[in-house]
Amino acid sequence: MDVTVAIDCMGGDHGAHVTVPAALEYLERDPQSSFILVGLQDELETELKRCRAAPGPRLKVRHASEVVEMDEQPAGALRNKKDSSMRIAIDLVKSGEALACVSAGNTGALMAISRFVLKTLPGVDRPAIATILPTLKGHTYMLDLGANVDCSAEHLLQFGIMGAELAGSVEHKERPTVGLLNIGEEDIKGNEVVKRAAELLRASGLNFHGNVEGDDIYKGTTDIVVCDGFVGNVALKTSEGLAQMLATYLREEFNRNLFTKLAGLVALPVLNAFKRRVDHRCYNGASLLGLRGIVIKSHGSADSYAFGFAIQRAVEEASTGVLAHITDRMSNLQKTAA
Amino acid sequence: MDVTVAIDCMGGDHGAHVTVPAALEYLERDPQSSFILVGLQDELETELKRCRAAPGPRLKVRHASEVVEMDEQPAGALRNKKDSSMRIAIDLVKSGEALACVSAGNTGALMAISRFVLKTLPGVDRPAIATILPTLKGHTYMLDLGANVDCSAEHLLQFGIMGAELAGSVEHKERPTVGLLNIGEEDIKGNEVVKRAAELLRASGLNFHGNVEGDDIYKGTTDIVVCDGFVGNVALKTSEGLAQMLATYLREEFNRNLFTKLAGLVALPVLNAFKRRVDHRCYNGASLLGLRGIVIKSHGSADSYAFGFAIQRAVEEASTGVLAHITDRMSNLQKTAA
Repeated sequence: MDVTVAIDCMGGDHGAHVTVPAALEYLERDPQSSFILVGLQDELETELKRCRAAPGPRLKVRHASEVVEMDEQPAGALRNKKDSSMRIAIDLVKSGEALACVSAGNTGALMAISRFVLKTLPGVDRPAIATILPTLKGHTYMLDLGANVDCSAEHLLQFGIMGAELAGSVEHKERPTVGLLNIGEEDIKGNEVVKRAAELLRASGLNFHGNVEGDDIYKGTTDIVVCDGFVGNVALKTSEGLAQMLATYLREEFNRNLFTKLAGLVALPVLNAFKRRVDHRCYNGASLLGLRGIVIKSHGSADSYAFGFAIQRAVEEASTGVLAHITDRMSNLQKTAA
Repeated sequence: MDVTVAIDCMGGDHGAHVTVPAALEYLERDPQSSFILVGLQDELETELKRCRAAPGPRLKVRHASEVVEMDEQPAGALRNKKDSSMRIAIDLVKSGEALACVSAGNTGALMAISRFVLKTLPGVDRPAIATILPTLKGHTYMLDLGANVDCSAEHLLQFGIMGAELAGSVEHKERPTVGLLNIGEEDIKGNEVVKRAAELLRASGLNFHGNVEGDDIYKGTTDIVVCDGFVGNVALKTSEGLAQMLATYLREEFNRNLFTKLAGLVALPVLNAFKRRVDHRCYNGASLLGLRGIVIKSHGSADSYAFGFAIQRAVEEASTGVLAHITDRMSNLQKTAA
């Protein structure tokens, strides 16, 4: 299936310098993809020239005169930046010219503009941010990661449905398992919202595993882990911090003296294999799920290798019909409730 | 200062087999400590014999006819197990025969019995579970880790005060910094409880740093990290899961083939140094803070090396007067509020 993706080329810490090479590299890899690069025309052309590339049938350039800043207030960006690269990339999804868009820009602004322009799918109260994480068994999808700091049980149920359809579509899994993040496996654990959410998930027809705990995320106990955005954000950032600390310690130990440095040299191929295996760049690209369009958020600090994975995520979601699956499932839920 | 610690020798996955050797080892290391071993007399005597030790002035044995099971309901344990090793260890703190107690048993039961027997300190609504975690800069104290799934802003303030007094006493820090776990550094981030807690902490006279994010825990941004028990428990368990996954991956890479195994052999001293540095056993021992007595919870799966650190924590807290410091600070707070 041919997929056109709109790319907000100005977002993130590195802008066009990262986004344009990533798009060009992906274009070569996947002959069924095409891109609309959105941003300041001059910058895009300079960057294309630097990469010895030019626009063509599979690579269009769309000028945008403004840029949403990384620290801009979402409401301000929504109101004032109607000709920003972010806004136009989302508009292209709305108009159908693109099947998905990718941005490494300001998360709050991306969510606010996406909600305003695209609207939520029927039956979805609030969009959620979902990401993929490595586990001992493969990987797992986790949501919400920070879009919603206060969630009701119904919101958590919707996250479960959206997550299951996302994992089911992209991973081609028939009945992916859904876990509810809690502080114990027993039904009596957790606060009232989580207890009620467990009841709703159990009655939903999803393949609900029950409660999972923090360590189950990386054990890969379930295909999907559902939580509110506060908890999900803390879990994700805590993981980032721990991984950084462990990497620093490991580096320090191998740099301690001549002997340890030599040992490090001998072990380098192994350490590099380990590094590749846990490379967080391969997990770049979070889905803004629950909108009437596919919007992928890349980490702001992504390099072009990492940004390529966010593009890949957009192409995968667009080509496997995630939105149609979520819409179907939500309308079934509403019929059951009615 | 001479410190007597009561040890619930029957708690945890391994019971007396772990707790007794740990106490004996600690006794040798620290001439100012003494212990009351609480548990089934027969088992304790067998274990002491196995370790070629005998009761003496610094090592007493107190018989308890019952054991609180690891999966027992807290309310049931509180009501029915009045002659359990856990209950008697706590009773010994209440009566003043011991300055602190340590248990690797059922956390819920330990908290319920401790609250009932010891009561909370004046001004403390709810006890919290605090632990110490390694960071890039040293270590940090984090609370609550699961005792309280729904917290008000006032509870979070109390956790901040108790954490600051704990870190201040044990680490001899004049004005330890307190961070409030949130999903962004800006004041506008987070839910209403967290926003209000930030206001209270700012006005409290504590050395309040402001909001911190998940990655700040392991960066060591602040000496204390305050959060509600749901979030804290998820952050801690997520860390455990990630650390286990990374350790498994590293082991797998070094076991891949003959060459990688040889590289592993060369790198073994370095890998062992790394392992020692991040050994979670050195961080074993969580404080049940806010009670009129010192209660330390060891991980249920602790071995005797790990259990020794929980004992050390009990001795440190007892000898540095943590309780008196918390009491002082809480009464000042109440005077200010009055």
